[in-house]
Amino acid sequence: MINVTIWNENVHEQDTGKIGDIMRGIYPDGIHGYLKNALAADDLFIRTATLDMPEQGLPDDVLNTTDVLLWWGHAAHAKVDDALVDRIQERVRGGMGLIVLHSGHMSKIFRRMMGTSCCLLWREVAEKERVWCIDPSHPIAKGIPSSFVIPHTEMYGERFDIPQDGHIVFMSWYEGGNVFRSGVAFQRDMGKIFYFAPGHETFPIYHEEYVQKIIANAIRWAAPVCEIATRKCLHEVDSTEKVYSENPLANIDTSSLHKAVE
Amino acid sequence: MINVTIWNENVHEQDTGKIGDIMRGIYPDGIHGYLKNALAADDLFIRTATLDMPEQGLPDDVLNTTDVLLWWGHAAHAKVDDALVDRIQERVRGGMGLIVLHSGHMSKIFRRMMGTSCCLLWREVAEKERVWCIDPSHPIAKGIPSSFVIPHTEMYGERFDIPQDGHIVFMSWYEGGNVFRSGVAFQRDMGKIFYFAPGHETFPIYHEEYVQKIIANAIRWAAPVCEIATRKCLHEVDSTEKVYSENPLANIDTSSLHKAVE
Amino acid sequence: MINVTIWNENVHEQDTGKIGDIMRGIYPDGIHGYLKNALAADDLFIRTATLDMPEQGLPDDVLNTTDVLLWWGHAAHAKVDDALVDRIQERVRGGMGLIVLHSGHMSKIFRRMMGTSCCLLWREVAEKERVWCIDPSHPIAKGIPSSFVIPHTEMYGERFDIPQDGHIVFMSWYEGGNVFRSGVAFQRDMGKIFYFAPGHETFPIYHEEYVQKIIANAIRWAAPVCEIATRKCLHEVDSTEKVYSENPLANIDTSSLHKAVE
Amino acid sequence: MINVTIWNENVHEQDTGKIGDIMRGIYPDGIHGYLKNALAADDLFIRTATLDMPEQGLPDDVLNTTDVLLWWGHAAHAKVDDALVDRIQERVRGGMGLIVLHSGHMSKIFRRMMGTSCCLLWREVAEKERVWCIDPSHPIAKGIPSSFVIPHTEMYGERFDIPQDGHIVFMSWYEGGNVFRSGVAFQRDMGKIFYFAPGHETFPIYHEEYVQKIIANAIRWAAPVCEIATRKCLHEVDSTEKVYSENPLANIDTSSLHKAVE
Repeated sequence: MINVTIWNENVHEQDTGKIGDIMRGIYPDGIHGYLKNALAADDLFIRTATLDMPEQGLPDDVLNTTDVLLWWGHAAHAKVDDALVDRIQERVRGGMGLIVLHSGHMSKIFRRMMGTSCCLLWREVAEKERVWCIDPSHPIAKGIPSSFVIPHTEMYGERFDIPQDGHIVFMSWYEGGNVFRSGVAFQRDMGKIFYFAPGHETFPIYHEEYVQKIIANAIRWAAPVCEIATRKCLHEVDSTEKVYSENPLANIDTSSLHKAVE
Repeated sequence: MINVTIWNENVHEQDTGKIGDIMRGIYPDGIHGYLKNALAADDLFIRTATLDMPEQGLPDDVLNTTDVLLWWGHAAHAKVDDALVDRIQERVRGGMGLIVLHSGHMSKIFRRMMGTSCCLLWREVAEKERVWCIDPSHPIAKGIPSSFVIPHTEMYGERFDIPQDGHIVFMSWYEGGNVFRSGVAFQRDMGKIFYFAPGHETFPIYHEEYVQKIIANAIRWAAPVCEIATRKCLHEVDSTEKVYSENPLANIDTSSLHKAVE
Repeated sequence: MINVTIWNENVHEQDTGKIGDIMRGIYPDGIHGYLKNALAADDLFIRTATLDMPEQGLPDDVLNTTDVLLWWGHAAHAKVDDALVDRIQERVRGGMGLIVLHSGHMSKIFRRMMGTSCCLLWREVAEKERVWCIDPSHPIAKGIPSSFVIPHTEMYGERFDIPQDGHIVFMSWYEGGNVFRSGVAFQRDMGKIFYFAPGHETFPIYHEEYVQKIIANAIRWAAPVCEIATRKCLHEVDSTEKVYSENPLANIDTSSLHKAVE
Repeated sequence: MINVTIWNENVHEQDTGKIGDIMRGIYPDGIHGYLKNALAADDLFIRTATLDMPEQGLPDDVLNTTDVLLWWGHAAHAKVDDALVDRIQERVRGGMGLIVLHSGHMSKIFRRMMGTSCCLLWREVAEKERVWCIDPSHPIAKGIPSSFVIPHTEMYGERFDIPQDGHIVFMSWYEGGNVFRSGVAFQRDMGKIFYFAPGHETFPIYHEEYVQKIIANAIRWAAPVCEIATRKCLHEVDSTEKVYSENPLANIDTSSLHKAVE
C-alpha cells in the first residue's frame, strides 16, 4: 500500500468571481479532490491536504506517513512556510516520492530540489498541446501512446531552467510554436521526483485519460524503495582498511574543527 | 580579465589555541590570502572576502562584480545569512561561476545549488589520498597527471549525496579503504559549479602544486560566457506561430490566475 | 518468468595446464555452469551458451527467446562473429537486458553498445578490493551493504572509457591505489545494460554472496518491460497537425532521396 | 589552426534527373563545397572529401591530420567501408571532433559512436521548422537567438533513439505536430560529437545564417584539446600504493589469461 498525499493550494477554487465559477465547474471538490477520486486504486491510500488547513496541511503525522506527495500550487507559492519546505525537502532526500504538477514548477519545494530557477516561457491562449512520449520503456510511460492531444492548454515553453540529469519521458508541442520538456524524472538523494506540466486551472486537463494515467504511473514509480531516513554525514571513526601513514597531528585534539561555531 | 572573489569563513585562522597556531603556520594570511597569492595571474583580478566583514564580505558592489566565486567554509555554515545565499544563488543562476572547496560541501550555497543533502562519510586520521584524473580532456584537468598524491588528508568518502549530472573530473582513493568523487563539475541555469574535495585546515593541502593548478583551471572554466542576468519566467504574449484553435475562455479575464495572492 | 541466457567463451575452463586446473577447481562446470546454479530461482528460466556451440551458442531460437543475456568473455573476444554481435545489438536495442561481466568490458557487444573504447588500467597481483555501494536506492543495490570486500581480485582502474550517462551503482577501492566505477547501469534504446567488474578467472569471486546478489538483482532490473521489437525509422506520412505551408516541391517526386543507392 | 574535413557522400548532387537539378541549383559545388565556402575563416583549414574519391576520401594522411570531421550522408551509408568506420571511430575516441549533419543520424559512424539505433520519425512535406535554443550558455549557441525559423524542412521527430547523456543545445518544433532534439552534444572517450538535424538536400537550409553559425560554433567546440592518441588498456604492473595482501597464485604464471586466443 502506497501512502499518497495530494497537496493543493486550493486558492482559485475559492475565487468568488468567474474564475472560481469555472474552476468549480470543472473540479467541484477542488483539483485535490478530483485527483483523489481519479487516482483511487487498491494499492493506494490517498489523502488530500490544502494550504488553509492547520500546519498548511502537512503536520508531522501526515508528512511522515506520506510515501508520495503530489504538489499543485500557483498563486500562493510564497505563502508556504520555509520551515515546511525544509521538512518536505528532508523527507524527499530520505526517499519520499514527489510529483510536481503544472505551475508547481515555481513552487518553493521544486526549486529547492532542483537548485535551478525553474523558469520558462508561458502563454495562456487555450492553444492545442500534443504530448510526445520520448521513452516508451520508462515505467511512467506504461500504456501511453506515442503522442496524445490536450485540446486547450496553457503553453509552457523552453528554455526551461532545470538540471541536465532529468530523464525526459515526455516532450510537448504547442500550436503557437513552442516546445517543452513536459515530463521529466529526477532522483535527489534517495528520493524520486517527477515534474509533469499539463494541468491548468481553467481547462479540464486532469479529466484527460492519459494525463491521469501518467500521474498514476508516476506514483508507483516514485514510491520509496528503502526505509525513509534522514540523510546525515557519518563519521567513520575506524577505517575499514589499515592506515599505515603516521598522523603528524596525532597529539593534537582537532575535534573543534568539526563543531559548528556558536 | 576574470573577476574572482575568494570567500573564507576565516574562523579557525583566528583560533587562539593549537589549531589556530597550526593554521597560521600553514596559512599566515588565511586560506583566502594564501589562495589569492597562489592563484595570482595576469588574466585574474582577485579579491578576498570573509564572514567577519560588513555584509559578510559580499555586499552588492562586490558580489555583482564577481565572475567566479570561490567558497571555503566549515564551522560557520549556519552563520551565513539566508538572504546572502539567495543573492549568491540568483547570481550563479545568471551565470557566475562557483567553486566550492572541501568542507564547503555542507555550505548553504552548495546545498542550495544541488538540492541534495550533500552528505558523505568522513574521517580525520591524516591518511594518504591519491587523486585520479577521470577525464583528461576536461579543461579543469589540463596539465594534471593521471594521478597524484596528497600525503595527509581528511577522508571524504561515498556515498556522496549529489545529483547524477555531475561530470566527474577527479576521483580519490584513500588509504583507509574509501573512494570519493572528489572533483565534480555541474551546470545550473547559466552558471557553472565545480566542487573540489581536497583542502583541510590543518594539512598544507593548498600548498600542493596540482591542487592549485586544478583550482586555477576551474576558475577559467567557470567564468561566465554570457552577460549575467536574473533568470525570469517570460510571458510570450504573442505566439511565434499562428494559433488556429478557438479559446473557449476568450471572453474571460484570467489574469488573476497569474498573480500571486497577498 | 524471465528467460536468462548465460554466455561464456569457456576458453580457460578447457586449458590443459595449471590455469585450467585452478579454474576447474573453482568452477567445475565452468563460470556459466556455476552462475546458472548460483542464480537459480523460481522466477528465472536459465540457459547457458558457449562459444564452442553451434552458431556460437546463440542461434535465433535461443537469442530471440532471451530476456536477459549475461556475457563473460576475455581471451576470445575477436572470435565472436560480427554478425552475431549485430543480432545481439539489435535485440538489446529492442529491449533485451544485457549484463556484462568483468573482462567483458572489451567484448565486441559491450563496446558496440557503448560506442567508446571501454579501456581501463589493470593489474593482476591478487590485491584486495572493496566495493562501495553508491546508490542504495537503486534496484541493483537491494540487500547490499554500504561496502564489502573481495579478498583477492584483478585490479581494474580509472580512467574507464565509458559514456557519462552511466548510473554509478558501485565503485571499487583497490589496495594498490586505484579506484573504479565497478557497477554501472545504462539504457540504450529500449534495452538496459549493466556492467559489473568483479569476476576474475582464477579467484573464486563468483562464490561471493554479494557478487551473486548483485548479478541476481541486475537480472530483474534489466528484464524487458515492453515487447521486444526491432527499432526502425518510421515514415509518418500524414502529420498529426495540419501543415499550412505550401510545398515548393509539391510537383517533384523526391522519393529517390530516401532510397539507399545500389 | 583547426584542420576541418567536410565529408559528403555526394550522391544526389550527381543525380541526372530533377532531384539533381534542384540540388545543383542550391549547391553548385555540392553540399561539401558550399559548406567549405560558408565556413571559411582564418582559424580554419578546410578540406572536402567525398565517397567517390580514392579510399572514400579519407586516406590516412587526410584522416590523421583532421581535427574536426563533418559528415553528410543519406543514401549511401551502406557503401562506407567498415574498415574506414573503424579508423574514424578510433580517431574520434582519441579526441577528433565529429559533427554529424541531418540524415547522417543513420550513418555508420554516428550509430557506432552512439551504440543506439539512432532511429526517428520523418516526413518530407516542406513544413515549417522552428529551432529553439535550449542552452544559451553553451559554446555552440553563441550568437543564436532564442528561436529561429527554417521555412521549409524535412521533419525529424521523436522518439529519437540516442543515449541520455546528450547535452541538448537545440530542440525543434515542426508545423505538422512533431518535436525533436535537433542539436545534441556528446563526449565519447576524448572526442566531442555534435549532431545537428537541419539540412535537407532539396531545401536551401545550409543557406540559413543561423544554421551556418551553429556549425561554425560546433567546429570550435569540437576541436581536440589534447594530442590525439589511440585509447588502450594499460597494464599498470607496479601499483602506486603498496599491496600487503599475499598472492595465493604468486607461483603460477597467469599471463596466458591476458592473451587473445588464436
